[in-house]
This record gives sequence, C-alpha cells and structure tokens, in this order.
Amino acid sequence: MTAQRRLSEAELISSFERVIAASGARPRGLVVGVGDDAAVFRGPGGRDYVVTQDVQVEGRHFERSWMGGRELGRRLAAVNLSDTAAMGARPLYGLFSLVLPPSVGDAFIRGVTGGIVAELSEHGAALVGGNVSGTSGPLTCDLTLIGDCPRGKAWLRRARTGDAVLVAGSLGEAAAGLRLLGSRRAVGSGNRLVRAFTRPRPQLEVSAALAGHVGVRGAIDVSDGLSTDLIHICRSSGVGCEVDADALPVSRSLARFCSEHGVDPVEWIMRGGEDYALVLAVAPRQTEQVMRLVKARAGRTLRVVGRFTGRKGAYHLVRGGRRSRFSASGWDHMASAG
Amino acid sequence: MTAQRRLSEAELISSFERVIAASGARPRGLVVGVGDDAAVFRGPGGRDYVVTQDVQVEGRHFERSWMGGRELGRRLAAVNLSDTAAMGARPLYGLFSLVLPPSVGDAFIRGVTGGIVAELSEHGAALVGGNVSGTSGPLTCDLTLIGDCPRGKAWLRRARTGDAVLVAGSLGEAAAGLRLLGSRRAVGSGNRLVRAFTRPRPQLEVSAALAGHVGVRGAIDVSDGLSTDLIHICRSSGVGCEVDADALPVSRSLARFCSEHGVDPVEWIMRGGEDYALVLAVAPRQTEQVMRLVKARAGRTLRVVGRFTGRKGAYHLVRGGRRSRFSASGWDHMASAG
Repeated sequence: MTAQRRLSEAELISSFERVIAASGARPRGLVVGVGDDAAVFRGPGGRDYVVTQDVQVEGRHFERSWMGGRELGRRLAAVNLSDTAAMGARPLYGLFSLVLPPSVGDAFIRGVTGGIVAELSEHGAALVGGNVSGTSGPLTCDLTLIGDCPRGKAWLRRARTGDAVLVAGSLGEAAAGLRLLGSRRAVGSGNRLVRAFTRPRPQLEVSAALAGHVGVRGAIDVSDGLSTDLIHICRSSGVGCEVDADALPVSRSLARFCSEHGVDPVEWIMRGGEDYALVLAVAPRQTEQVMRLVKARAGRTLRVVGRFTGRKGAYHLVRGGRRSRFSASGWDHMASAG
Repeated sequence: MTAQRRLSEAELISSFERVIAASGARPRGLVVGVGDDAAVFRGPGGRDYVVTQDVQVEGRHFERSWMGGRELGRRLAAVNLSDTAAMGARPLYGLFSLVLPPSVGDAFIRGVTGGIVAELSEHGAALVGGNVSGTSGPLTCDLTLIGDCPRGKAWLRRARTGDAVLVAGSLGEAAAGLRLLGSRRAVGSGNRLVRAFTRPRPQLEVSAALAGHVGVRGAIDVSDGLSTDLIHICRSSGVGCEVDADALPVSRSLARFCSEHGVDPVEWIMRGGEDYALVLAVAPRQTEQVMRLVKARAGRTLRVVGRFTGRKGAYHLVRGGRRSRFSASGWDHMASAG
C-alpha cells in the first residue's frame, strides 16, 4: 500500500466531528462531545464528569532512549491530567492500554505502570483498569482519564471579547528540550529544558484554586503551541486575539537555548508544543482577583500575556508597538518526533 | 535491544494489580478496579458507572486484508460493548485513539470512525471524543467505553457453588473464522465463521433483559476462550467448575470446519477466543426463570453448559460420563494473530 493520507491531525478530528454529527446521535446526558480538551457528561447528582484520552507513540511523541519507563508513565499521566486541569475538573480514575514490542522488558513495563500510578496518585487519582497487547511496531501507551467538576462548571474552549489571556506554567521550554533530545547531543536528564519535556507539570493546583470561579470564561492546555491553542479557543468562541510578545515568559535557560540555536524566543514560544501550560480566558474585571486567588491558594503566579478581541479570525502578535498576524503553526502529532 | 519479556498477558495484568495495590491508593468511590471486565465507580445518584478500554492491533487482533475500515470500527466497538454486557451495564459514551500508519487512507479512517459510531448507536451509545496520532508501526485502534447500571448491581466475575453456567451466543466459531482468514485461502466475507470473527455480536439484549435480576450471580464475556474465561470466574470466587461437553453448542458450520481441519469441536470451543459470547453464573433455582425472561424479553436462547462446584481450583470437562481436567489454555493477545 502507498501513502494516501494527506489530512493533518486537525483535519482528521474535524472529519470525525462530521461523521459523528451525520449519525444524528443525541446521547443521553452529554454536555460536550468531540472538540474540547475532554468530553463532558452529566452525572445523576450535582456533578458533571469529564473524560479525556491521549495516546503516546514511540517515534512520534517520544523515543525510549530519552526516558525510562517510570518517566514515560508519569508523562503519559501528566498529559491527560493536564486536559483535566484545562476543564477545571478534579481527576479521579485512569485506564490504560499498553501496546508492547518484544524489545520492551518487564522492568520497563513495571516502570511505566508505576509511573502512571505515581503521577495519578500525586493528584488524587487512581489507575483502575488496563489492557495489554503485543505489537510488531513502536511502543504505544494510551491513557483515559475520568474526572469530575461541579455541574455546568467545566471550562470549555470559550472566551469573550475583552477577556484577558492568562498563562500558568512555562512556554517553549518543552519544545526546546525536545529539540535537544532529538539532536542526539549529550544532554543531561537534569537539564531544565529536557525536564520540561520529559516531566511536564499539569496545572491542577491552579485549576483547583479557581474551580467554579465566575471570572474564568474558558481554558485550554498548551499541547500544540500557544498560537495553535489560542486559535482553538478563538474559533470555538468567534473572537480574535492579541498576544503581547513582551509579556511572554522567557526563562534564562530558554533564552540561552534560543541564542545558541539562532531562533527567536517569541516565535519559539508561539509554535512550541508539549508544554502543558494552562491558558485561561478571564473576565477583565476579575483578572486581578483571579491572580491573587491562585497566588494565595496554590502559590503560583499567573501571567497576563494578551487579550481576546472582537475581530473574529484575526490573531495578532504585538511586539514593541508593531502588530503582526500569526496562524496555527504548532505541533502536529501526525508528523514525526524530534 | 533484544527480546527480554517472558510474561504472558495474564501475568502482565497481575503485575499491574500488584503495582497498583503497592501504591496503597484508595480511590474515592471506586467499587471495582483492575481485574474484571470493566472498572466500576459510584456515581453521586443511584447509579454506578462501568468503564472498559480495549485495544485492537493490526497483526495481533486483525489484518487489514481481512476487513474494511467500517467493519474494523464496528468490531472495535463490539468488543468493548461486550465488556459492558458482561457487567450487566448499559453503554453510554465511547472515546477512541487511532494510531495510523501512512498506508492507511482517509476513506479507511472515515470507515473506522463510521463503524464505531454505527455499532455504538445501535446499542444506544455515542462516540464523544477521540484523538489521533501517526505511527511507523501497525494500525492500532483503542476504544474506551463508559456505561452505567443500578447501584451495586454490576455483574462481577463471581459465582457460588452450585450455580449454573449459562451461555448466550456462539462459541468456537470466531476462532474458526480467524483460522480461515489466517490460512490465506479464498474465503468469502459472508462465511458464517468468518463473520463470527469480523462481526461479533455483543450480548447486550441479554444483559438488558436480566439487569438487576437477583438470580445472576456474575458474568464474563468469552474473549480468551471458554476454558480461560470460566477459570477467571472460578479464581475470583474460590470455586471450581464442570463443563458438560455434550451441552456445548456446535453449529453445522463449526462441525464441518472441525471435520475438515481434523480438530475436536469440544477442544476447539474450550480454547477458541474472540467469541464475545456471554457467560452467566446463575443461581440453580433461578435458572429456568432467567432463561424464560431472556426468551421473552430478548428473544434469545440461553444454554446451560455446566455448573460451578465447591472444588476450588478443579476445572473439569465431562464427556460421555468421563471427566477430564482442563486448564487456562486460550487466547493470549501478546502472541501473534492468525
């Protein structure tokens, strides 16, 4: 068979939405289906459930030479926990599929399971089911995570004109770490950039501090790059956005990386995926209170990096007073890793 | 790297259970964790939720030459729906991961999605989320299915001494179809045995007819072979079992296959996996009523094929008055397909 597919990840997801819409299914209790960070369904009591599923494929999302089994398990859990954080939900139960090539040994497999269990339990969740298969291909790990939140309070990919863009967590560092890992140069696992990739930190403390807060209009986690993920919110909401380049957080490690690699830190942050930072759309009058709450309850600093505008479909980067357009140009999981 | 792993699928699942147990996690609201057909957690109202996740890997569970995308999607959904049936639950929401090699075209992918949606919606469930990745390896499709049932009424892998073993659905036919497909001889997709493999029928009408019935003590679906799956129930319950060979259903197609392939139909049924028949443990005094109910409500015939005994760890096949022991010797998804 020859390569026939030309659709990107985003186009594939759109085609799934069309197939599902065409089926005319009106599922009992479903609040949100395909197209957000997680599906949402109504429980019989005062809670809603959120469910997300994310797969990690060797050669696309990671290489086994980059991390041990335990680190891989933690990362798989963190990626899904981050989706739960982006829904403003509390994680509860995980289930997984491990698809194992013969070259993966028992110790590595135990490491993966142990890593998933450890990362979930740090955030109050538990691994409750799993299944396993062999494969002639790359190691493939798939995790499903179920969480809950107060009824009607899940954070969708929504923003209104004038809302501030707030960010929790680092940006661009994971993509830099990924580049370092892919370059096959000797790079220590303790390197801050490498750790941003291998050990992402789901922003659950931040979302827990804000759960149910009226000022939070919507949220997304940055898996595909800030530009792409902001545009996801804008498209779901019929708005535009403006990013203040000077407000983007450039750590010293990232600045050094960018200088060594001759890349622009702002461009890098806009495009770099896999950060699992949390982006919030916050009502302008509530921004200060939201920031204070997160500081007080979670000890974390939110950063205002832009605002949503009424110009539907217009995505601007403002830098030293000059405005330039940006587009969705981030990470595509149909492409190769590294 | 060289092949290091020696653990079977069952051993791997056991090792997961140990890792999870060692973590000491006591998840909120969890009723059943790893080790049944699905995990069970308590909803805030009068319902429990069941969640199952099953992966299908090209070269292990199927070959693309055996079926189209739509058939593959239906089969993936049916395998998960069968787990829901084995819990006595009503299926609600599905989420999937598609891991796609470059050789899979758009039409095939739409077929898979359409097949999942069609099979789920026939049983009142809906596809509500999904994600997609590329791979350099075989096509890998993973589906998670969430269902619900009355609180405390999920069917576990439980039986008591004296309970009857009842079966809904065909046995051994799917394994025969799989053998035919693997033999690369020309075989029509309309062949009854081939269809038993490519288009398994989840026994949801039967479980819906019996949901909450006090006579049903436990259940499992036959994915690994009748011998292996009966032993799963026995081990969870500290009992033994006895299968009446003469009561096992041998269809005309299966009899012809066995005669042509020189295999014993009873051995074949005991070992052959992938049937997705439903096995019920039913209190002896309720057996007749259970059978009548299923006939009246679902128009289906249950068959009594044996009983659970007080002899823990003793698994017997009774044939023409002679008893022989059997062991777990069914399907292992760590091995290759065909």
